[in-house]
This record gives sequence, structure tokens and C-alpha cells, in this order.
Amino acid sequence: MERAILEGVMKLLEDGVPLAELSIERVARTAGVGKATIYRRWSGKDELFIDVVRAAEPPDPELPGTSLRDDLVALLESLRLRGLATRSSAILHNVYAQMKSSPKVWSAYHAGVIVPRRHLVMQVLRRGQDNGELRRDIDLELANDLFVGPMLVRSTLRPDGDLPEGLAEEIVDTVLEGLRPVSSTAS
Amino acid sequence: MERAILEGVMKLLEDGVPLAELSIERVARTAGVGKATIYRRWSGKDELFIDVVRAAEPPDPELPGTSLRDDLVALLESLRLRGLATRSSAILHNVYAQMKSSPKVWSAYHAGVIVPRRHLVMQVLRRGQDNGELRRDIDLELANDLFVGPMLVRSTLRPDGDLPEGLAEEIVDTVLEGLRPVSSTAS
Repeated sequence: MERAILEGVMKLLEDGVPLAELSIERVARTAGVGKATIYRRWSGKDELFIDVVRAAEPPDPELPGTSLRDDLVALLESLRLRGLATRSSAILHNVYAQMKSSPKVWSAYHAGVIVPRRHLVMQVLRRGQDNGELRRDIDLELANDLFVGPMLVRSTLRPDGDLPEGLAEEIVDTVLEGLRPVSSTAS
Repeated sequence: MERAILEGVMKLLEDGVPLAELSIERVARTAGVGKATIYRRWSGKDELFIDVVRAAEPPDPELPGTSLRDDLVALLESLRLRGLATRSSAILHNVYAQMKSSPKVWSAYHAGVIVPRRHLVMQVLRRGQDNGELRRDIDLELANDLFVGPMLVRSTLRPDGDLPEGLAEEIVDTVLEGLRPVSSTAS
């Protein structure tokens, strides 16, 4: 049932119906359900729309939990896959653009999707710091941006940014290692 | 003369005239010059608009040239200042939004402003690699994103991202040093 409703919204979006013209009534008609069925699950159109975005995005990653490094690689790899999906999926491209033009929907997406993802990264970093896998003198907000920033810049700010396989590993390993030559004799 | 024309455009933008409705004729009238005077300096409205953006942005930094570290700090500090200026200046906020809604103007800004800035960072990184201040086994495009990405994410993707004084130094030093504890005995 839920699936049919989400697919109904996607069909409308694919047909070019803008977010502003999507109504619960229209979604109900497209999905072949009653409006009450939709309202039992979602409090309104914005909440429904956000679940559509979530269903269209690649799923959030399973963290291996073997090390800080491996968890960070999994998190960055899922960012990379989401970036690739956004480029190749007309519907994802479309829903992100529509979300960004609606401050209300964007802030609901931010609170419901982006903030929890960020919390997950922070949790991984905190555990890494507790385990001695991450310097203890580092502000975790900064550490978050040092790992996530390079991938986000490539996937969201540069439409032509290179997102090759192995990029997640490369970013994580290089940020952990640092960019200074290892020692003056080795350089 | 040039200044008067740029200020004429800014005045129109401040008055809420959208980019699409700006015409060379209207700019000429506001600045009190003839259209020919404008065309002697700019080939069209888009080129003029980009110089307006450039004039509204904080100036590009002077590089101290003392070390890779110092040059990178200067480059990131100018990104930070531009981020702060965009938040506090209604006109900059407005021109960026208008640019992004016009693919043609955005690509002219990209080619005329963003690409040269990126080349400058790459040049600084290349010199650092030649001098032995940067690991030689690192792809410079990746190095660029590791330094610039965290600042860009805070200044452009997060309207509420923290941009405190000292952030440029903190990013550069931490990325150079790496996030792994220095040694297992020291951790």
C-alpha cells in the first residue's frame, strides 16, 4: 500500500507535475486509494514527498563496525553513490531541485534526513576518538567536514566532478594520513 | 566611468530588478552614460553582470609566498571571507541566486572567476609538491578538494555553518598533519 502511494507520487513527478501542484487528492487518485489512507500514514504532502525522495535515493549504508576507517569509507561510499544516482536519475535530479525551491520542504528534508545522517557520522567519529583511532585534540565537527566535505563538493557543487570507484577509500586514507611528506628523509 | 556603471547595475539590483529585466539601455540610463560607452567595455549584459559580482565580492587574496601552508591559509581565508560576505550582503546573496538560475551567466562566471581561482590553488599545490612540502604521491585534484572542500561545504552548502576566525589555519594544518593519532604510544 505504502509502496503504491510512493510510486503514485513518482509517476506524477515523472509526468512533470511540479511539487506545488501535487495534492493529496491527486496522489490518492493516481495510487487508487482513498485520501484517508494517505493521511493515516503521512501528516501532509511535504512529509509524503520526503519519503518519496528517500525511496528514490540509494539506501543508507550498513556500517561494517570493524574500524573507524571502514565505517567512514562506507559512509563516504554511500555519499558517492547518491551523487552518481542524482546525476543519472532524472527523477532524483528533479525532486532535489523542487525541494530546494521550497524552503519548507527543504527544511523538513534537512531535519528528517540530513541531520540524522550527520549524527551517524558524528557517532562514528566519537567512537573512533574513544578507541584511539582518531586524534583526540580534534574538534569532531571539523573532522566531519574534513572527511565529508571533499565528497560533497564533488557530488553536489560540481556537476562534472569526478566520482570514480575507490574515491571514498582515497579520501578517508589521505585525510587520516595527512598531506605532509612522512619525514624529511623520505620526501 | 566603469565604477559608475557597475554601481548603476548594483543600484538596479538593490531596487529589486531581476537579472532577466536588466538591459544595457536601463543600465546606461541609471548610470547616466550612453549605451556605446558600456559596449566599449563589455560585450553584453552577462559580461557586465559578472564584473558586478566580482566588484561586490571581497578581493582575491595576495599570496604571501612564504610556504605552501601560508599560501593555502590565505586562499582558504579568502573563501571564508567570501562566505561571510555572502551571508551579510543582501546584494551578493541576490546576485548569486540570480546567477544560479541562469545557466548561461553561471557558466560565464564559472569560466571567468571560478576556474582561474581553482588554477591558482592548483599552482600553489604543485609548487608545494615540487618543494617537498606536500606528499608527492597525492593527486593534486584530490588535494585541492581536501583543502577547499571543508571550507566550501561550510560557506556554501550550510547557511548556518560556523565560519570562525582561525578556521582556515585549522583546516590547512589538520589536513597537512592528518587525523590519525601521531603514534600509538602518544595516543
